[in-house]
Amino acid sequence: MAETSKENYVVGIDLGGTKILAGLFNGSLECIGTAKVSTKAQRAVDEADLGLKQVAGVGIGAPGAVDFETGTVIFAPNLDGWKEVPLKKELEKQLGVPVFVENDGNIAVLGVHVAELKAKPRHVIGIFVGTGIGGGLIINGELYSGFNHTAGEIGHMVIDVNGPKCGCGSRGCFEAVASRTAIFQRIKEGIKEGEKTLLTDMLGDSLEDLRSGDLRKAIRRGDKFVAKVIEQAAEYIGIGVANLINILGPEVVVLGGGVMEALADEMTATILKTAKDHAMPGTMKNVEIITSKLGDNAGITGAAVLARREIK
Amino acid sequence: MAETSKENYVVGIDLGGTKILAGLFNGSLECIGTAKVSTKAQRAVDEADLGLKQVAGVGIGAPGAVDFETGTVIFAPNLDGWKEVPLKKELEKQLGVPVFVENDGNIAVLGVHVAELKAKPRHVIGIFVGTGIGGGLIINGELYSGFNHTAGEIGHMVIDVNGPKCGCGSRGCFEAVASRTAIFQRIKEGIKEGEKTLLTDMLGDSLEDLRSGDLRKAIRRGDKFVAKVIEQAAEYIGIGVANLINILGPEVVVLGGGVMEALADEMTATILKTAKDHAMPGTMKNVEIITSKLGDNAGITGAAVLARREIK
Repeated sequence: MAETSKENYVVGIDLGGTKILAGLFNGSLECIGTAKVSTKAQRAVDEADLGLKQVAGVGIGAPGAVDFETGTVIFAPNLDGWKEVPLKKELEKQLGVPVFVENDGNIAVLGVHVAELKAKPRHVIGIFVGTGIGGGLIINGELYSGFNHTAGEIGHMVIDVNGPKCGCGSRGCFEAVASRTAIFQRIKEGIKEGEKTLLTDMLGDSLEDLRSGDLRKAIRRGDKFVAKVIEQAAEYIGIGVANLINILGPEVVVLGGGVMEALADEMTATILKTAKDHAMPGTMKNVEIITSKLGDNAGITGAAVLARREIK
Repeated sequence: MAETSKENYVVGIDLGGTKILAGLFNGSLECIGTAKVSTKAQRAVDEADLGLKQVAGVGIGAPGAVDFETGTVIFAPNLDGWKEVPLKKELEKQLGVPVFVENDGNIAVLGVHVAELKAKPRHVIGIFVGTGIGGGLIINGELYSGFNHTAGEIGHMVIDVNGPKCGCGSRGCFEAVASRTAIFQRIKEGIKEGEKTLLTDMLGDSLEDLRSGDLRKAIRRGDKFVAKVIEQAAEYIGIGVANLINILGPEVVVLGGGVMEALADEMTATILKTAKDHAMPGTMKNVEIITSKLGDNAGITGAAVLARREIK
């Protein structure tokens, strides 16, 4: 069958600090199989009953600075401090297929731009709210990674200079006030201070295995404390959106990542209102602020887009 | 003489909210005459003993959103709320020479990029600290103005969400904590709270006619209060620089504007240290952070660059 010809399949991998997601994509960029946890692309391929022989290329998104030309991860604090790792070269040797590596935020915005927005808007900012906050920029229709391959590090934009300490050492970074980590910490602190929440009924006092979806459940059951914490995080995200609109003048802002996937209904109105309040006059005219439908698959989709583009 | 041929001269105009600066430039982009205050390019030309007949074109930087293609000022809150003003068309009718209009921050970074940096770096961020804080972006070697012609509005990036109120309605915008306006306000508040400063000896209790240069004089005479206020402003500028480096990954960051021109010696070390403390690892590798030598002439120089480029 034509569909199973090698050229039609690519593997996209999202190499995270806490998990690895791999997906197998057909010629229409449909994801026909995914695998979590394992670092090996082989796993996703197995699940979809294909051998690597039928895969034309592998794309990988890695957290940190990546030199796309050489496929080297320059540094990645979240991957045990990787420095100058020739990921493309090593994996091509092992897998025998072409491998392409980019930064994870870059690749996620690329996935949204091509697969979801059909590559129409010229200037797109991707904001991915999960364990941390990652970003990616499409400028003049192309992925933009800047001088040191580090553009899009929006999670460490300081927005509250006297705010909570961030893992990077600064205070009040975007991800220190609005990531899942920040939200969970505020909830745990609140409980210590005597706030009442349904989450302790649901998960026990230590909130073991707390996930973004639990917050949604709690809010829908009327949990006012969790609603307040999420409202506050949404306000911070709105300020982050406005800052980026003021600086970059995009056509589309795409929100994604696990937190947005779980809590978009609860957060979107506040994000939009706060962004409008903080953006300069004229900057938001006809600008779309949307939540990606790709959810957690934005990264692997972008990795597949990259692989497909490069092997052509 | 070849030098006086019409093609060699262009006029650059920096249309500010509080003052207008015009300059006449020769073929080597040397400024051979300037005029302040008047809105008319004619004045600068008079001073240099040339008639408009010898001028090949006029470039203008205007505060606000500018559509370069049509030469329309879309809106400019600082110019009595101009909206949809066809500046190019009107001025061409009156002056009889081609007129080109851009945003003032954009045009200032263009001036620095071409006249000072010889157009070598690919990605440049301009930060201009004066009455407010303006910005401009060179991306992939070209001026970048974004979807709504508003990119580079860095002065309204929120960096201290609970900070002082900004003219735009938000709190803790970059220009609300680090512009000349913010610095002067902090000094006046300090005096009310009983702080001692040489400025009152120099200018009287109401600090009439206070200028950035007075702050430099006071600091050099040992004024600890003014030194502390300037140190704090420099820290905020350093955070702004780091935010922009994290987001955009530039090759060069250029600091300019009246405050930097007067106080670069006092502020630079703190700006650099704070930027390094807040930028993500790897983002600042080989990145230059410099103070423009063009000072207040960055805008008119960029306007001349624009005019010269477009009439060729």
